[in-house]
Amino acid sequence: MSELRKDVITREWVILAKERAKRPDDFKPAEKRPKKPNHDPKCPFCTGNEGMTPPEVLAYRAHDSAPNGKGWNLRVIKNKFAALSSEGDLQRHDVDIYDAMNGIGAHEVVIESPDHAKSIALYDQKSVENVVWSYVDRYNALREDKRLKYISIFRNHGKIAGASLAHPHSQIVATPIIPQKVWSKVTGVAQYLEYREKCAYCDIVETETKVKERLISENGNFVSIAPFASRSPFEVWIIPKRHSSCFAYMDRFEVSDFAEILKDTMLRLHTCLDDPPYNYTIATAPCDTDKLDNFHWHLEIVPRLTTPAGFELGTSIYINVTPPEDAAKFLRETKLIKEKCK
Amino acid sequence: MSELRKDVITREWVILAKERAKRPDDFKPAEKRPKKPNHDPKCPFCTGNEGMTPPEVLAYRAHDSAPNGKGWNLRVIKNKFAALSSEGDLQRHDVDIYDAMNGIGAHEVVIESPDHAKSIALYDQKSVENVVWSYVDRYNALREDKRLKYISIFRNHGKIAGASLAHPHSQIVATPIIPQKVWSKVTGVAQYLEYREKCAYCDIVETETKVKERLISENGNFVSIAPFASRSPFEVWIIPKRHSSCFAYMDRFEVSDFAEILKDTMLRLHTCLDDPPYNYTIATAPCDTDKLDNFHWHLEIVPRLTTPAGFELGTSIYINVTPPEDAAKFLRETKLIKEKCK
Repeated sequence: MSELRKDVITREWVILAKERAKRPDDFKPAEKRPKKPNHDPKCPFCTGNEGMTPPEVLAYRAHDSAPNGKGWNLRVIKNKFAALSSEGDLQRHDVDIYDAMNGIGAHEVVIESPDHAKSIALYDQKSVENVVWSYVDRYNALREDKRLKYISIFRNHGKIAGASLAHPHSQIVATPIIPQKVWSKVTGVAQYLEYREKCAYCDIVETETKVKERLISENGNFVSIAPFASRSPFEVWIIPKRHSSCFAYMDRFEVSDFAEILKDTMLRLHTCLDDPPYNYTIATAPCDTDKLDNFHWHLEIVPRLTTPAGFELGTSIYINVTPPEDAAKFLRETKLIKEKCK
Repeated sequence: MSELRKDVITREWVILAKERAKRPDDFKPAEKRPKKPNHDPKCPFCTGNEGMTPPEVLAYRAHDSAPNGKGWNLRVIKNKFAALSSEGDLQRHDVDIYDAMNGIGAHEVVIESPDHAKSIALYDQKSVENVVWSYVDRYNALREDKRLKYISIFRNHGKIAGASLAHPHSQIVATPIIPQKVWSKVTGVAQYLEYREKCAYCDIVETETKVKERLISENGNFVSIAPFASRSPFEVWIIPKRHSSCFAYMDRFEVSDFAEILKDTMLRLHTCLDDPPYNYTIATAPCDTDKLDNFHWHLEIVPRLTTPAGFELGTSIYINVTPPEDAAKFLRETKLIKEKCK
């Protein structure tokens, strides 16, 4: 018989369809994906094509190299097809009975590596740290703009997961409103705190490191777990052990540990599921965290292995065909090809 | 510049990316889909294969035909791979800090037509009415089970929209909890009512029939509109003009009008977008509607033309590349091939 499980923060239920439980092999692509070249002359994110993108707003590059030219390890640019833009004043207006506002915000792209073919699962430690530092640097720069209420940092990998360009990149979108999804988590944490007098995510870290069956890996400052109410097969959360509302409050030791566990987790998913399509997103407190320090930031990884359909659309209840206990076991026991990643 | 718009009920925002506004031709499939046969001997839902499915719980069939054999126009069966099942007692239990319960509920399939190739867009009026009556009949039967709190009725069309079988069918899933998505709409309607002393959906019907730019079609009892805060290109809502919390309260004139506008809308989408993949779902009040008669049922159709990615996952803000005013105009002006549908 299947089981219903509740996310203690959002109160969203999931259905675990245990009879038809699926294993990693059930999700592997039918055909081997063609190997990508390390450089694609037509790719706007590849070295030598810096002129094809808007100018960089941040770059980690050789000291003797000029902006918007070669010699970089990582570049952050404005998205050429930005969903939101910082120019103009924020104007909220009524349209008949409805609310609207002009599209003020920011939309940036982190070009993570000059290597067209690499994936975050295969970066070295230093490169992952660079990616994390770029998130922190841009977050801190963008939060200076008081019109912006939330900064969303995410990564799409693979066409099925909505990545339109193959070159490894992340995106940052800042919105002039607090998204409902974020608000529901902030509210959920506040309600849990009021009822149980503890932080929900601190409680999850404590429980999962004790119980161990959903624990994937752990280091000094972080845990990587398959959440109890996983919405999709092989969903993973990376949670800091120290209670902190905003990911940009990490110190350099935490950045190093976060990069390490992120890379370890992505490599486990890459190896176990043969480079699956996925989205990851950082859940952090809204920009004005003075009133919201109850929140506990974390990263959520959702591999795109099944297709949400009408039921999910109408109810937001997900049907998951791989219990998180199974997923965690597979990911824990995956043999990591360490030499690939040095 | 793009625009942010708010759904007045759920308070979810969407981003309308107006600069890169897409037209129907941008979404048409690159290759013509192969024509489906009217009968597939391997399909478990085709005539002659009734033995391949669980026994029918409802059928509209010739009076002289026997159950679970040929001679039917529509059959409802239990899903062979049911996500939830009615056997056993509902048991809620704690797992460490989490809540879980066993998978009590129901999961049924409406096999809408003996014709393997047809789509609801191409049914005659009588066949669409049959589909709607089967929803009503099964809804009323399932709500007798007091363990069930919500009954979700939906249709998945096309592989991209999660349909695993090509034969035209809908699904009904009853859950022992009220889904959060449903609860957020019920709450949203209650808050709107408290603040504006009107039903939000009644207000939408009044506004859209007056303003007309998002109106697609209308008959005596229903309107079909592109919602102001459409989450995806060509999203459509069909809303009854009469305030009613539960779709199963329709009288036979309303069923007839609902079937007519549903068929008209599906045919417009089919013609305009060349048989797009889509999900539709009926949003209705939870089963115990005594306390929830504020709600106003409706049907939501979401064509699956773009891929939600990390941003949508992390924020629940959708980026929509076709303004609803454009979508409504395209759908209004679509030339319907009437002869196809008789």
